[in-house]
Amino acid sequence: MKLATLRVPGGTAAVVVDGAEAIEVEGAGDLGALLADPDWRDRAAAADGPRHPLDAIADEQWAPVVPRPGKIVCVGLNYRSHILEMGRELPTHPTLFAKYPEALVGPYDPIRVPAHAGDAVDWEAELAIVIGSRVRDADPDAAAAAIAGYSVLNDVTMRDYQNRTLQWLQGKTFDETAPFGPVVVTADEFAPGPRISCAVNGETVQDGATDDLVFGPAELVSYISGIVTLHPGDVIASGTPGGVGHARTPARYLAVGDRLETTVEGIGTLRNRVDVRER
Amino acid sequence: MKLATLRVPGGTAAVVVDGAEAIEVEGAGDLGALLADPDWRDRAAAADGPRHPLDAIADEQWAPVVPRPGKIVCVGLNYRSHILEMGRELPTHPTLFAKYPEALVGPYDPIRVPAHAGDAVDWEAELAIVIGSRVRDADPDAAAAAIAGYSVLNDVTMRDYQNRTLQWLQGKTFDETAPFGPVVVTADEFAPGPRISCAVNGETVQDGATDDLVFGPAELVSYISGIVTLHPGDVIASGTPGGVGHARTPARYLAVGDRLETTVEGIGTLRNRVDVRER
Repeated sequence: MKLATLRVPGGTAAVVVDGAEAIEVEGAGDLGALLADPDWRDRAAAADGPRHPLDAIADEQWAPVVPRPGKIVCVGLNYRSHILEMGRELPTHPTLFAKYPEALVGPYDPIRVPAHAGDAVDWEAELAIVIGSRVRDADPDAAAAAIAGYSVLNDVTMRDYQNRTLQWLQGKTFDETAPFGPVVVTADEFAPGPRISCAVNGETVQDGATDDLVFGPAELVSYISGIVTLHPGDVIASGTPGGVGHARTPARYLAVGDRLETTVEGIGTLRNRVDVRER
Repeated sequence: MKLATLRVPGGTAAVVVDGAEAIEVEGAGDLGALLADPDWRDRAAAADGPRHPLDAIADEQWAPVVPRPGKIVCVGLNYRSHILEMGRELPTHPTLFAKYPEALVGPYDPIRVPAHAGDAVDWEAELAIVIGSRVRDADPDAAAAAIAGYSVLNDVTMRDYQNRTLQWLQGKTFDETAPFGPVVVTADEFAPGPRISCAVNGETVQDGATDDLVFGPAELVSYISGIVTLHPGDVIASGTPGGVGHARTPARYLAVGDRLETTVEGIGTLRNRVDVRER
């Protein structure tokens, strides 16, 4: 199944994206709320609410696929080929940092950059893992069973803020900068392997394989669950392959008006324009 | 005013702690819910719900003072005298990292340490800033006006996990490790200056002054609000003074059974026993 969240009059609704239409799941205000119900699979399979032909859904109707995750855990330094090509050793533990939910925007929304943080805006295409059941201190098998599915997230980063101090958080959590969606493909229909790519104004800048992770999805969920309980709707952004702008010579950053496209094959493409954030 | 959250039959309740009793604020399920109402000051001042004599409230009835903040932003390297005594230069920007709300426990609850993370458990007494109104891109004056008040938080840290990678998050966000409370003293009745201290089994291990911050509360709120919108109930843990166990020779860590006391004069004392977290 493909699941999503649509902005509808009066709020949002969880939908099943099935062929040529999106069908609302009755009583589920968004995909996070749906996943919080242990019967989410059955409810989604039986979705019988209002129907939206896909070609009639405007871009701005697509919300962040989980609009308000309880938490977002980001993983750094996790693409094997990129680490090796940089001459580094593979890490023994995942590098983890946070992003607050205010950073999320819908899959086709503008990325809003405030004037004071526009000098070094960079892209990071990522495969996102979405949690489907509560998980704590889980071994990798139990961890795998807690994964609802997979989505696409661009961990757009203000490199100047990221590198002001040793801790990356402040460059990673600007409001309205991280597109997320368009759908979650459930874990029974997606396994890491397909290509992940990022393009700026039509030029491919990142291209990797989603099974090139040092720490794969089950291992990440298991490791993190030994630290903090994961709940339905929580998100793990699993890291980005080589090709970010900051690592180029000269460095290349996003400018207002640029078009950013982020794709995981089999899930979908985020299409976002870089815009200015007003006060 | 002093505000808190009590565990009551069927849930929790925001209370005003007034002299010898705690008075429930009707219709406010916890202090975070109360602060989300722009009229929170008037509602607290007019509190007229069930009354609890303070000496009849059991330790386990005190919840984390804001049980589920939308976000917790932690500040590192922020006590001036400690930075200077280490021979370091004062930072030009705040070092920020996150803690997820699952880490919080009440002011007298046990700190629960899983067996796999018990080797390097350290203390960090901190003054906590609690937000009282939505704030974004604020100058320091507007930022100061958005502060509801101040509380006490111990940013208990697993040093081994903190230092496994360059990013501290994983050592900072173990479930049920960070005591928070017992009350929020509103900003009209508290200004940084009073002593902050930490004691282990009765021995003082940290002792500083809460006005020794490189970045004070208004400056922190202003800076963070330029990155991410702060909402009522959000928490900023403003950093810890010298005296942590990891910096001692030899290093000293917390063991199961240790008693940890964390005090900010004028606010109160957290009293927590180190315990084992079961699966």
